Amino acid sequence: MAAFRLALINPNTDEADTTEMARAAGAALGDGAEVVPLTARRGVAGIETSAESLIAAAETLALVRETPDADAYLIACFGDPGLDGVREVTDAPVIGIGEATYHAMASVSRRFAVITTLRRGIPALLDGMEHYGVASRCVGVLASEITVEDLGGDSTDAIVAAGRRAVDELGAEALALACGGMTDLENAVRERVGVPATNGVAFGALLAHALWRSGLRTSTVGSLAPPPGLAGAADLC
Amino acid sequence: MAAFRLALINPNTDEADTTEMARAAGAALGDGAEVVPLTARRGVAGIETSAESLIAAAETLALVRETPDADAYLIACFGDPGLDGVREVTDAPVIGIGEATYHAMASVSRRFAVITTLRRGIPALLDGMEHYGVASRCVGVLASEITVEDLGGDSTDAIVAAGRRAVDELGAEALALACGGMTDLENAVRERVGVPATNGVAFGALLAHALWRSGLRTSTVGSLAPPPGLAGAADLC
Amino acid sequence: MAAFRLALINPNTDEADTTEMARAAGAALGDGAEVVPLTARRGVAGIETSAESLIAAAETLALVRETPDADAYLIACFGDPGLDGVREVTDAPVIGIGEATYHAMASVSRRFAVITTLRRGIPALLDGMEHYGVASRCVGVLASEITVEDLGGDSTDAIVAAGRRAVDELGAEALALACGGMTDLENAVRERVGVPATNGVAFGALLAHALWRSGLRTSTVGSLAPPPGLAGAADLC
Amino acid sequence: MAAFRLALINPNTDEADTTEMARAAGAALGDGAEVVPLTARRGVAGIETSAESLIAAAETLALVRETPDADAYLIACFGDPGLDGVREVTDAPVIGIGEATYHAMASVSRRFAVITTLRRGIPALLDGMEHYGVASRCVGVLASEITVEDLGGDSTDAIVAAGRRAVDELGAEALALACGGMTDLENAVRERVGVPATNGVAFGALLAHALWRSGLRTSTVGSLAPPPGLAGAADLC
Amino acid sequence: MAAFRLALINPNTDEADTTEMARAAGAALGDGAEVVPLTARRGVAGIETSAESLIAAAETLALVRETPDADAYLIACFGDPGLDGVREVTDAPVIGIGEATYHAMASVSRRFAVITTLRRGIPALLDGMEHYGVASRCVGVLASEITVEDLGGDSTDAIVAAGRRAVDELGAEALALACGGMTDLENAVRERVGVPATNGVAFGALLAHALWRSGLRTSTVGSLAPPPGLAGAADLC
Amino acid sequence: MAAFRLALINPNTDEADTTEMARAAGAALGDGAEVVPLTARRGVAGIETSAESLIAAAETLALVRETPDADAYLIACFGDPGLDGVREVTDAPVIGIGEATYHAMASVSRRFAVITTLRRGIPALLDGMEHYGVASRCVGVLASEITVEDLGGDSTDAIVAAGRRAVDELGAEALALACGGMTDLENAVRERVGVPATNGVAFGALLAHALWRSGLRTSTVGSLAPPPGLAGAADLC
Repeated sequence: MAAFRLALINPNTDEADTTEMARAAGAALGDGAEVVPLTARRGVAGIETSAESLIAAAETLALVRETPDADAYLIACFGDPGLDGVREVTDAPVIGIGEATYHAMASVSRRFAVITTLRRGIPALLDGMEHYGVASRCVGVLASEITVEDLGGDSTDAIVAAGRRAVDELGAEALALACGGMTDLENAVRERVGVPATNGVAFGALLAHALWRSGLRTSTVGSLAPPPGLAGAADLC
Repeated sequence: MAAFRLALINPNTDEADTTEMARAAGAALGDGAEVVPLTARRGVAGIETSAESLIAAAETLALVRETPDADAYLIACFGDPGLDGVREVTDAPVIGIGEATYHAMASVSRRFAVITTLRRGIPALLDGMEHYGVASRCVGVLASEITVEDLGGDSTDAIVAAGRRAVDELGAEALALACGGMTDLENAVRERVGVPATNGVAFGALLAHALWRSGLRTSTVGSLAPPPGLAGAADLC
Repeated sequence: MAAFRLALINPNTDEADTTEMARAAGAALGDGAEVVPLTARRGVAGIETSAESLIAAAETLALVRETPDADAYLIACFGDPGLDGVREVTDAPVIGIGEATYHAMASVSRRFAVITTLRRGIPALLDGMEHYGVASRCVGVLASEITVEDLGGDSTDAIVAAGRRAVDELGAEALALACGGMTDLENAVRERVGVPATNGVAFGALLAHALWRSGLRTSTVGSLAPPPGLAGAADLC
Repeated sequence: MAAFRLALINPNTDEADTTEMARAAGAALGDGAEVVPLTARRGVAGIETSAESLIAAAETLALVRETPDADAYLIACFGDPGLDGVREVTDAPVIGIGEATYHAMASVSRRFAVITTLRRGIPALLDGMEHYGVASRCVGVLASEITVEDLGGDSTDAIVAAGRRAVDELGAEALALACGGMTDLENAVRERVGVPATNGVAFGALLAHALWRSGLRTSTVGSLAPPPGLAGAADLC
Repeated sequence: MAAFRLALINPNTDEADTTEMARAAGAALGDGAEVVPLTARRGVAGIETSAESLIAAAETLALVRETPDADAYLIACFGDPGLDGVREVTDAPVIGIGEATYHAMASVSRRFAVITTLRRGIPALLDGMEHYGVASRCVGVLASEITVEDLGGDSTDAIVAAGRRAVDELGAEALALACGGMTDLENAVRERVGVPATNGVAFGALLAHALWRSGLRTSTVGSLAPPPGLAGAADLC
Repeated sequence: MAAFRLALINPNTDEADTTEMARAAGAALGDGAEVVPLTARRGVAGIETSAESLIAAAETLALVRETPDADAYLIACFGDPGLDGVREVTDAPVIGIGEATYHAMASVSRRFAVITTLRRGIPALLDGMEHYGVASRCVGVLASEITVEDLGGDSTDAIVAAGRRAVDELGAEALALACGGMTDLENAVRERVGVPATNGVAFGALLAHALWRSGLRTSTVGSLAPPPGLAGAADLC
């Protein structure tokens, strides 16, 4: 898989998250592909609210505009901050890990559940599923009440327990792990719960590649034509 | 109507727009009310795309956080940039003029049309109507292909013509004028087309007052609790 | 707020309800506004079913036709009986308290719950929320099993308990109080549950004023043109 | 088909309409069935608006309450005035001709069009199709601009022309004739347009019989339990 | 009810099921009607999955093509296998018992529940209700975990218990019995739970007759025109 | 991309189609991947109707069951015949080209159009978009009235013309080519219309690979557990 260059944007400011996600994306893409890791310089270390997410969206847009030479972009935060806007400023494929996860869920199951961090994020997740057209396939959203920043090896048990409850009580057939920080939990959840699970980082990198490799580019007409107000406005990066 | 202090935020950078919209809001609220005009310092002079809108959203959030002492906030751009995020950082009522306009349309008609500036903005308008639950009441969106910045007295004829077409051919019973810059067209459209019309600036100011006056405040629980990552983060303004 | 004349229509036959709701509307509107209280002469004292509601709708229409000189009309029953029909016979703004409450819920929260009287009314409430486009924002409807007629100071505890359950267990961020008779419970619910709450009487009066004050009138074209069959038919009042 | 007694309620005041619809229902049901024709005593001769429809709804409810001994009820106006309310006051099957027509359309086609009288009725028809769950199957509503009262042999050509346009241009595979007064046009439309067509009078009578014959009755629990406020209230008939 | 000839197709291979369902259909239609029982020769004895259902769909299509001389067809499996396809190869009315049951539910209740066999079938049932436009009226699907093949007198208690739970806890006002094999349970459920209930076999036979008797035929234009690839292809039966 | 073995199933009987689609899939996957071409032995040479599609679905299921050793399956007909059923009989990823195309459309555009063969297929396409959750993003379906079997170099001009109309008049930003037989038109449409376009064969092969490579498998619980009736039933292949 030579000569594919993916810019992986971490919309939060935690560089350790970026490193871990870039590693997972690189491992999925395999030899020959290059992953360019980009970390938000402004914002919060763990995005849990809409206010934090809109700061992240502006920063994500700036990072993409400063890095115009990638073959594809992966926005590595489950809320897909800035996704629609970013698609206006490049014709390379742009994938969000939330969007990628929902596509995967729809392809490997008829009904899935979402495991997230904080309960307060549930309305935004439900609105996102409406937007992506998968709301009727979701049997429920379960919150572990562990923040993005506190996720770690210790939280695996809580996530697995939530996943089992989703399968046994709600009829989930697959699990969406609604946080970029859950990258290293994917395998544990798959093995211990016994259903497909993903947070969209590895799969999203491959989905971006699949679009690029098959010659698909982001449209540049209609709502996705370049924004006139940003032409030459480097200061708005 | 004494002692009501409304912060009117213009998410674009054009201070003339701010002045005109603040004037209209003040005239609607009447004596005793105070309108605090705030203009984006960063961004574009006329917001026509999603990328431009997300820059405006971050700036709107910053302006609200810097101006915490208003009784209510009016986001005076039809795309309601930053609305959900702003509601997390204040318990004062927050209204967007897009949202206000759709509420008005639903109350004065069974079917309405939207008159907007550029055709490229139609998908975002349709997505917004899905989000606000009014999509099934909208009979169509017509674009004048006049930009926000070029709107002016001369464009009235084009807007009126589009409005007449919406009424005669699409069955519209009222007209949403999808731009803060159409403030001074409201009366002309009402009179010349013969149906209710608004861009939500004057009505939105009164709607914000109605919430405030009846003792309603923005919720501070659940998804609208203060964002932990922004506590004390003045640098993120 | 001088010279605004609101006709408040109580579609049930209980004049004490009318008095209490007119008092709340008048207090919200403040000095200078006039509230004209109108009570159904035919029907039931507490509207709990669709059959009772359609009798109330016809009576509401008759009351509006007999009182053509108001600046705006408020239909003060949560089921908004006759709303679409009334909008055909006047060009003054017409607001129902159910509709007003849902608009308020959408503006002060992302997710709300409804507290109603009898469980049997739940399907009609859910159908109404579909109609008003807010169904996806409602996390649940809880019934106190206290009838409209039995509502009173004693029932506050039950309503508050239901509200707390909605917030704690269902994730409600605001509460719709689905009965005109809950007018005097608004403050108690707000204070004791700690979230925004309304039954739409006070807010609806202000919303009607906001439309009127900003120059918006009910459309008189399309489906809202005057009904030809009623022209001059005073006997159909 | 012995011993089936159907009350056919014409919610408008035109007895000639009642006679024609009762004739069609009786012919469909065949020997042994009895059709009891009931005509609204109060209201308008041709129901074209929501205001007129809610007067008709109250009158329909009164007629059913006065005629408790039928095996089933057919509300013979396409807007199905009073349908939900009537189902609370009887356990006999109750069918509206609008509802019946939409069921038929869904069973004989994948996509249908509606041919109606006046353009102003289109929003109410679309809302009804949302309510009945058939909106996504309707390719369009065409209005002949002939009023209910003016329908007659002469209008057949206009209705047929509208039907042909719906088939040729919109892809309609069947036609809903949205008016009780179009009863005698059914055959002409079927023959001349070449697709299934109905206004639901004959089919609705048979559908009511099908429910009754298979032992199905209107539910008497939940939202369909008898309305307490109407118990013994003969004056509300 | 002379001279009506209904082909009842059992898409599973269990002839005892066919006999029982044909008996129920014949009893509903009464003297003079003829029921032609047809049983799948290929497939499974109890259809519980999508894979099994698509084998049944192809077999159902073949049976209809081999039996072209019926006045109407009833597909007697709740998943309505092959329904859209069958409507392309005949102009006689074609009814599925799932579709018929949902129509009945919508006519005798405002909210209903579904009682099915296995929990694994719930996603397909929910997808079906979306397709038929009745999803918002369904308060829940309860599975007895008794397979189609094990249904029998002994399972009545479990079905009745599930029905009572649906009424008491979920607010169901009527019950859809989601299996052709539940034909002989209809009366027991009605009597012991006290709400309308059906599995659509008897009612579906009468609904097919109602369409036929009122002169309605399956459309033969648009998507329902004869499939060109099957013309003369007897080997594809 | 070593060691990935994709079974490409052509649900129609035309082996030339299979060859062409397998070639495109192989070219997309690149060296090291193996494409196993499978052609329906029973059915029609070009699937244009629901009846033809359900014969194809049963045949697709049989082909998958006979070929259990693939790493992933691609159902190469735009109607995705048998997709849900096939997912029950394997835990390898299964992708349909219709589903894959819609995922691609949602990732490279905000609004797309569908270019199909025959107008009669439009209702099935619209139903499919509802099912996949992309209906609100589709601005229209245009039919070339060229059958699957007649597609060829000569039809490129007609497809390109339809694509241009979709972009210019309907606001499409990308084009779904709704037929496996349009594989060799992808590049011509992209170049001549100037927007992203795909029929899902090449992209679908890469999407199947992306799922497989990231360790995602089709769920084997809930509705996707192995069908009990097919266990050991080789005769049902």
